[in-house]
Amino acid sequence: MATDFTEDTATAAVVESFSKTPDPRLREILGSLTRHLHAFVRDIEPTTQEWEQAIAFLTATGQKCDATRQEFILLSDVLGVSMLVEAINDRKAAAATDSTVLGPFHVVDSPPRELGDSIDLLDTGEPCVVTGRVVSVDGTPLPRALVDVWQCNEDGFYDVQQPDLQPLGNGRGLFTTDAEGAFLFRTIVPSYYPIPTDGPVGDLLAAGERHPYRPAHIHFIAGAEGHAPVTTHIFVAGSPYLESDAVFAVKKSLVEEFSVVDDPVQAAAYGVANPFRLANFDIVLQSS
Amino acid sequence: MATDFTEDTATAAVVESFSKTPDPRLREILGSLTRHLHAFVRDIEPTTQEWEQAIAFLTATGQKCDATRQEFILLSDVLGVSMLVEAINDRKAAAATDSTVLGPFHVVDSPPRELGDSIDLLDTGEPCVVTGRVVSVDGTPLPRALVDVWQCNEDGFYDVQQPDLQPLGNGRGLFTTDAEGAFLFRTIVPSYYPIPTDGPVGDLLAAGERHPYRPAHIHFIAGAEGHAPVTTHIFVAGSPYLESDAVFAVKKSLVEEFSVVDDPVQAAAYGVANPFRLANFDIVLQSS
Repeated sequence: MATDFTEDTATAAVVESFSKTPDPRLREILGSLTRHLHAFVRDIEPTTQEWEQAIAFLTATGQKCDATRQEFILLSDVLGVSMLVEAINDRKAAAATDSTVLGPFHVVDSPPRELGDSIDLLDTGEPCVVTGRVVSVDGTPLPRALVDVWQCNEDGFYDVQQPDLQPLGNGRGLFTTDAEGAFLFRTIVPSYYPIPTDGPVGDLLAAGERHPYRPAHIHFIAGAEGHAPVTTHIFVAGSPYLESDAVFAVKKSLVEEFSVVDDPVQAAAYGVANPFRLANFDIVLQSS
Repeated sequence: MATDFTEDTATAAVVESFSKTPDPRLREILGSLTRHLHAFVRDIEPTTQEWEQAIAFLTATGQKCDATRQEFILLSDVLGVSMLVEAINDRKAAAATDSTVLGPFHVVDSPPRELGDSIDLLDTGEPCVVTGRVVSVDGTPLPRALVDVWQCNEDGFYDVQQPDLQPLGNGRGLFTTDAEGAFLFRTIVPSYYPIPTDGPVGDLLAAGERHPYRPAHIHFIAGAEGHAPVTTHIFVAGSPYLESDAVFAVKKSLVEEFSVVDDPVQAAAYGVANPFRLANFDIVLQSS
């Protein structure tokens, strides 16, 4: 091994240092990390001060994290890494529903609800009905599929962000499809909202004159026996920021019309005030 | 702007999102970061679980940092990034003394000492004399040059790591060269030592079956009016780990003989016990 670590020998020396890593996958990852990280450094040739700023930024990002805040996931999101990893792990049949990011606001124990129930426990927004079916790629309905949904309120906040203002479970529900694979729930129209900006990632967006907003959306995780589950959103057509989601999560196939329905009979049938908004989202799962 | 974020469009979309960054240097850095980070992700195609492990590793690294511990610098060190940045910022005349990493144990206020003083306040190691001259690239001696030195004790610990066992300033001194540019100080021979291994970086080294040791060395920062300062080490020839420094900081030009001198007359002249070790290090500064 060379004693001299120079610009010429640097990358090979570090890759070589990881060559005895017993786990072959970890060895591959560390070698690739070294090559790409060094290529980045060689490309920008940071000054010592810039290197110190990078160390300070990464340190502040780690120190911003706590039980309810994950600033490194936020960083991965705004750099498009989360969506790229999602895309790489979602190379499936074109007919299957596209996936998108999970985001930081999912909870493990979503409250089970009956079809037709409302996930809005506060009755403060624009009433909305969401219908849909879970089907296989060949169109076969999937009864007893689980549909886990969560969304923010009309002000753009999730229940876990406002423990004093929203009961836990507001905007959340775990539904089970009927014999035809159908689901239906009542809610309010979600709002667009900013990702948290009071940390290093907010500073980064500000320095790049990037806005922090996400277009209005409802999160879904749908799964059925014998099928690969999908983590996705539906986006509200016409929402601001559909063309510039701060975390790059929009796919055209996931933008749905939330049509205005002014029909007292339909409203009464769904159990919502008139007029209301109606969206449909069919979820196509690939066999596992 | 495209609404669809796919594997094909991902990198261009994120680079584009930073295109309005007012600071042109920051815009360049964020574009390059995005391209290299995405290239890394495309190369290794991480599973969702591997991505989660990376987030957890970075978070733990940030949270390990405190007033006296900088785990992200340690990570930069063991990935060879610190030395690569150092090398890029040290493209100077071949005749000038090579630089190497600053490391985490420098203090701003090194105690000023007289030429010939000892930086060893505890008298517990193998006695050692270090001599040298600070000169310009053309050989001109540089009087009144400042030579800031610091080193660990014979057990491999710096004063700041052992506040209960070592007085602050042990192993440190700020010297001023004489009319011939010469300096001389007494000390003990430093030991090789491990970088801290009780954090995520220690876990990384263990997973790669890499040892955490640095070969024995004395740190120097030398500066003189009209010249660029140099941050460097001298390494003790024959020390273990000279060929495999955990932070890649060794350069052949910085390895110096610490010769054993068994000569009561010389020992008395230097004011050290006999036998002792003697090292010489001439420092060549480039005009600024």
